[in-house]
Amino acid sequence: MSTPLKGNAVIGQSGGPTAVINQSAVGVVEGLHAANFAGKIYGARHAVDGMMSGDFIDLTDWPQDRLDRLAGTPSSGLGSSRSKPKEKDVRAMTKWFEDHDIRYFFYIGGNDSSDTCRIVSEVAAADGFEMHAFHVPKTVDNDLVLNDHTPGWGSAAKFVAQAFMGDDLDNQALPGVKINVVMGRHAGFLTAASVLGRRPNTNDGPHLVYVPEANFDADKFVKDVAAVYDRIGRCVVAVSEGIHDADGTAMAAKLAEMQGHRVERDAHGNVQLSGSGALADFLAQAVKDYMGRRTRVRADTYGYLQRSFAGVVSENDAIEARAAGRKAAELATSGVRSGSIAIQRVPSDHYQVEYNRIELSDVAAKTRHLPEEWIVNG
Amino acid sequence: MSTPLKGNAVIGQSGGPTAVINQSAVGVVEGLHAANFAGKIYGARHAVDGMMSGDFIDLTDWPQDRLDRLAGTPSSGLGSSRSKPKEKDVRAMTKWFEDHDIRYFFYIGGNDSSDTCRIVSEVAAADGFEMHAFHVPKTVDNDLVLNDHTPGWGSAAKFVAQAFMGDDLDNQALPGVKINVVMGRHAGFLTAASVLGRRPNTNDGPHLVYVPEANFDADKFVKDVAAVYDRIGRCVVAVSEGIHDADGTAMAAKLAEMQGHRVERDAHGNVQLSGSGALADFLAQAVKDYMGRRTRVRADTYGYLQRSFAGVVSENDAIEARAAGRKAAELATSGVRSGSIAIQRVPSDHYQVEYNRIELSDVAAKTRHLPEEWIVNG
Repeated sequence: MSTPLKGNAVIGQSGGPTAVINQSAVGVVEGLHAANFAGKIYGARHAVDGMMSGDFIDLTDWPQDRLDRLAGTPSSGLGSSRSKPKEKDVRAMTKWFEDHDIRYFFYIGGNDSSDTCRIVSEVAAADGFEMHAFHVPKTVDNDLVLNDHTPGWGSAAKFVAQAFMGDDLDNQALPGVKINVVMGRHAGFLTAASVLGRRPNTNDGPHLVYVPEANFDADKFVKDVAAVYDRIGRCVVAVSEGIHDADGTAMAAKLAEMQGHRVERDAHGNVQLSGSGALADFLAQAVKDYMGRRTRVRADTYGYLQRSFAGVVSENDAIEARAAGRKAAELATSGVRSGSIAIQRVPSDHYQVEYNRIELSDVAAKTRHLPEEWIVNG
Repeated sequence: MSTPLKGNAVIGQSGGPTAVINQSAVGVVEGLHAANFAGKIYGARHAVDGMMSGDFIDLTDWPQDRLDRLAGTPSSGLGSSRSKPKEKDVRAMTKWFEDHDIRYFFYIGGNDSSDTCRIVSEVAAADGFEMHAFHVPKTVDNDLVLNDHTPGWGSAAKFVAQAFMGDDLDNQALPGVKINVVMGRHAGFLTAASVLGRRPNTNDGPHLVYVPEANFDADKFVKDVAAVYDRIGRCVVAVSEGIHDADGTAMAAKLAEMQGHRVERDAHGNVQLSGSGALADFLAQAVKDYMGRRTRVRADTYGYLQRSFAGVVSENDAIEARAAGRKAAELATSGVRSGSIAIQRVPSDHYQVEYNRIELSDVAAKTRHLPEEWIVNG
């Protein structure tokens, strides 16, 4: 280091927790230590909420074994938030940054979080406040553009694949129609992971997969299910929570309105999809109505289990989540002003990735979708 | 062996699958081989259904590595059934036994299955047909009398404990009310396992646990939840699917009727509880109505995930499930006519169990409940 690094650093974890988001937070801390960062390293409690209210913890002197224990724990150890900071909130955060001489801002999250990071970076620049703002990717949805895949998705995908393996065997033992709703608002990557445990050239399920990238038609759905059932005597179905009709209205939102419930939205305008079994139950009832009452039809919603389950973690996912955090700290402390870390594949005869800086504006508030050629029946 | 064993053997797997029920089937096969059993060893496809229709597979010459692979696979590899054989069905089975010289009948299942085993044994005895009929315990509900615990419960309990550990951390990150519905028709053992990952002297959840052993009062429920929420700012709740009102009517059945759906029952008269998120959603809505719309309330139903999940298996559960199967084969081939294997604890300063024969009539169609002293607030 030619010039000593000035100021302090803050780390925030935003949006839905994952099984490995703490790896990324620890990766940032390790990256700062590796750069001989001399300032304080704060963890903001509940992301932007803690930065607005001044609620944070001091991670500077945490010993390695405590960092390792945090890294191995699922969910967001610092607390999370779904708040989208408005202009006055960013002012409150900026004031907190100035009061505490925060010059390094690390924000771990998905596309909404990268947008928050972009806003913070731009406001600081406009104020002439020297600030290094980095976004570290995290999302079980795997929907960040310019990334081969995102930390959190691998572990959730492992859970979903294991769940479908077991559930399909359960359905082989007691045959019928089984519908499982998987997380995924706009992107079907996690639902697509349901097929990873399927053996080739067998009748293993899931036999049908519905993702948000294709419009959902309930009439076609029940006919598809009945056709599989008629052929092999059972049918296991994977459905994204984010399926929507041709107008783009989420089925889950339509259902809530049909049942007279208020449709909940977060600060980013996202309709609540998880935390309810209504979509799965509606689909099960539609199949019963179409196929007749004697068919055994069951539905499960994987809900929050898939993102924070203790003990089902992809080893690779954990390693990459940590490395992404380290890379952000390395770039910030080497003088780069802002960016997001993208995990990108290196062309190779074996699995290999690199962690590259991309512009915040290139990833912020954008959504990556399943490649069209992966969708059989759109 | 003083007298050679005559005839052939059949193994059936009945009721809900578990993560270790294949261990018990393989244990029976191994026990028969250990007794130098010279007859055929059949696996009935879909339990009594296969014995009535003559659909079975021959396990006699399976090599050990294939047996081991089956043992390590979740769900019921032979297929299962929820049929309760009527008198004419038992006649059909008896005819199949006579035609195939089946003298050893092993039936792996819960309390309904032990009752089927009892009926088969009694019909054979009445007909003067020499038959050894053994029940091997299996149930994620852990509700067989005279057993310390039952194979299948340990692995499901491990899943539930891990799920609550992760989900409680998720709720710490994004605080609110979280309700999780766990399997358990008449017994709360599996729901009670939700507390196993809770650290002492912390605010770890679940903070409230509702089991079928106590009458459920929805008004008291919402007040209990609000009180915890007011105290610590969040509340994680574990609820058995089998909760019922003071009249004994299952909440799930009441709800289905309220919503105009037919209440599904199996051949044993059991109301369908799993495979729907309606109970969880009803409880979440009740909390929202009571606490106000701004409270974040989410509900998940663990559903079939908890009984056949691939990869979350209790090692001890797997060992005991296999040993119970072996013990049944050992007793049957040593000349004992009938019985059920009970896992019973040996008084000791370390964990130790033994596998004891009990009478079929002592376990058949009976339900064990959580000890009253384990229930804080009945």
